[in-house]
Amino acid sequence: MREKQIRSAIKQAVEEVREKNPLAPSITNTVTQDFVANAQLAVGGSAAMLYLADECAEIAKIAPAFYINMGTAMPFYAETLPKTAQALHENKKSWVLDPVGIGLSNLRTNILKQFKNYPPSIIRGNASEIIALAKLWELIESSDAGQVRGVDTTEKVSAAKESAIALAKFTGGAVAVSGEEDLVTDGEETIYCAGGSELFTKITGSGCALGGVMAIYLAVATPFIAALTATTMFNLAGSKAAEVGAPASFKVHFLDNLYELTPEEVAGNFRVVGSFEKMFNFGL
Amino acid sequence: MREKQIRSAIKQAVEEVREKNPLAPSITNTVTQDFVANAQLAVGGSAAMLYLADECAEIAKIAPAFYINMGTAMPFYAETLPKTAQALHENKKSWVLDPVGIGLSNLRTNILKQFKNYPPSIIRGNASEIIALAKLWELIESSDAGQVRGVDTTEKVSAAKESAIALAKFTGGAVAVSGEEDLVTDGEETIYCAGGSELFTKITGSGCALGGVMAIYLAVATPFIAALTATTMFNLAGSKAAEVGAPASFKVHFLDNLYELTPEEVAGNFRVVGSFEKMFNFGL
Amino acid sequence: MREKQIRSAIKQAVEEVREKNPLAPSITNTVTQDFVANAQLAVGGSAAMLYLADECAEIAKIAPAFYINMGTAMPFYAETLPKTAQALHENKKSWVLDPVGIGLSNLRTNILKQFKNYPPSIIRGNASEIIALAKLWELIESSDAGQVRGVDTTEKVSAAKESAIALAKFTGGAVAVSGEEDLVTDGEETIYCAGGSELFTKITGSGCALGGVMAIYLAVATPFIAALTATTMFNLAGSKAAEVGAPASFKVHFLDNLYELTPEEVAGNFRVVGSFEKMFNFGL
Repeated sequence: MREKQIRSAIKQAVEEVREKNPLAPSITNTVTQDFVANAQLAVGGSAAMLYLADECAEIAKIAPAFYINMGTAMPFYAETLPKTAQALHENKKSWVLDPVGIGLSNLRTNILKQFKNYPPSIIRGNASEIIALAKLWELIESSDAGQVRGVDTTEKVSAAKESAIALAKFTGGAVAVSGEEDLVTDGEETIYCAGGSELFTKITGSGCALGGVMAIYLAVATPFIAALTATTMFNLAGSKAAEVGAPASFKVHFLDNLYELTPEEVAGNFRVVGSFEKMFNFGL
Repeated sequence: MREKQIRSAIKQAVEEVREKNPLAPSITNTVTQDFVANAQLAVGGSAAMLYLADECAEIAKIAPAFYINMGTAMPFYAETLPKTAQALHENKKSWVLDPVGIGLSNLRTNILKQFKNYPPSIIRGNASEIIALAKLWELIESSDAGQVRGVDTTEKVSAAKESAIALAKFTGGAVAVSGEEDLVTDGEETIYCAGGSELFTKITGSGCALGGVMAIYLAVATPFIAALTATTMFNLAGSKAAEVGAPASFKVHFLDNLYELTPEEVAGNFRVVGSFEKMFNFGL
Repeated sequence: MREKQIRSAIKQAVEEVREKNPLAPSITNTVTQDFVANAQLAVGGSAAMLYLADECAEIAKIAPAFYINMGTAMPFYAETLPKTAQALHENKKSWVLDPVGIGLSNLRTNILKQFKNYPPSIIRGNASEIIALAKLWELIESSDAGQVRGVDTTEKVSAAKESAIALAKFTGGAVAVSGEEDLVTDGEETIYCAGGSELFTKITGSGCALGGVMAIYLAVATPFIAALTATTMFNLAGSKAAEVGAPASFKVHFLDNLYELTPEEVAGNFRVVGSFEKMFNFGL
């Protein structure tokens, strides 16, 4: 896919979501639900958060895309999550997985193993999580890299490149690794996106919200373009909002910017730096 | 009830809540709990969110009003919600029901059917939800109108007028239908309230917060006046906040305005347009 | 401990948290999780919210401190909370308890009784909650003081002094009582901290966030200094933010101020008023 085509596809995705107001329901952690939903609404999508297995299976039939974030797992997730993934699979629906907390408990490990049978369209996580998932699904060889401590990463984005590509090839979708620079790959092409702000590390939920917005774009675009569009928007809106200098004001302005960005800005505000692997670099 | 009396009753409700700081506990969805509680506090009330059946039944005895929003149902809601409604009924307490997600699952349908035995004082929802509830309780004839898709409405407010009146007559309380214009009825009088902002559709939880604030006013006013006061405040605070132009700033300013509105502003900022059915129309 | 030493220890705690970014996981109520996490991040800490017993027991081994807020108890708390407290005790980890809702149900009473065997390092609550916990643990004689109604206090901070000292002596840690003035004691020294703002009563979760931030400072300081540092920061950041005059803007600016306060400001912005019991009084 050439750069011009990517720019055009991103622009179209931003426009179509604002026109069609697509619904991407979520099973997501209780900490950041409000932020996720407001980010989804700010870009023009529609949000609904659910917990019950039968409700998720039912809405999976009518919604064009879905978001599963494993954050604050509750006991009934053991039933809800696999059933929802199965329903999404059977109804040929696209969905985003954020495997946050991978390795914390047997419940999470069991659920994530089952997801291998119903693979997500986009996997989004930090470097440690992506490496851990590729290992759990036995797509890369086990090593001592990619230890996860709580919800934090111990690895650089580039360390997860091999795992990300392996996961994307296995699922046939896209993988996005968040970090200082963000990596997005469909298994063939791998793009690094710069931008954003250090202030993202001083607020909670930007990763969760990013996954939720990717699900909104999945309703109108391929996994690769959906992941890239959301990543690009977050980096751009974050760069702009960082001017306020403090985290809570940053969060407010970030959401405002998601709402205000023009399709042209989103599609146009990157430049190729050397190889294709380094093409995204915001010059504001 | 004449216009002058309504203005006077609204003014008094706004004042009394600020003086008495009444508590309206909630069982409400996890997405917007923070927004609901902050809206309740901004108007001068007090908030407490709960999940356990025995705690809700216990607090139902001492709190003057209660709010049940069915949003993110969890498995234990099957026990908590009917027991709470029963306790409210037995203690003759007023409460607000937001039947969000009606029709999504058997769990919700079973709970909502039981609520017919312990009717709420105010029912608040969008047009589709109000029509669906009137059908579920067999108060109107079933037709193909009022399909609910996820948490969104497919109907205009006016399409729910018959259902709203039927529900209000059955409960002896009030019904509020939210939309571009809002309808409030006690079964006898039906008022349309204008104002608000398109930005309400770009943030999550304004409907939930509206229900929570109605519960606060239920502590000091009749269901009709409580529903009308909260609706009027939201429209006025929303109109003012809309000047900022973007959703996250809008949400902050909206809450600030709820806190800052004077009783006179709330009671005075509408005008009669033609028939009584069209009397509320904000002229800022 | 002399005033100079306290100032120095506070300054060091503020600095060390910003350098080390310590993780303090939480089991905390669903209403204010976002606010708690963002407050923890704003002061330089790291946040993770959990519900499952085995995950909490696992993370208790690696995290330096923990926060348990009993707010919105769910059925599975009966297993999660005692197991977590036991794991923290066995791993000799420091933790903060907020006994919010004490007395509301048998589930809470049973959990709180078990906590006596695994005592927390800091107990934070309003006056009614602190008195009720001292009674429940049979550390003071039962009287009719300290009735709890919902989540609100019916008592002044000073009325909880005896209970706070008794709890601190029993646990060997610190107790913080929030109110118009805040009391912090380690059972030997008792300090009243002034500052803050009436606007704290118009937003939800400042008490929860205070407990969460105390847990962050527990990772680098003694219970007494951790409780005092968090209390001092909240009062100072709240005083500064109060200039905006309305609750939602106040909340944003309060978090911004938590992030921006210098260690010198935090350690320096109090003065001794008469006896040691009255030493903290912000002169902005």
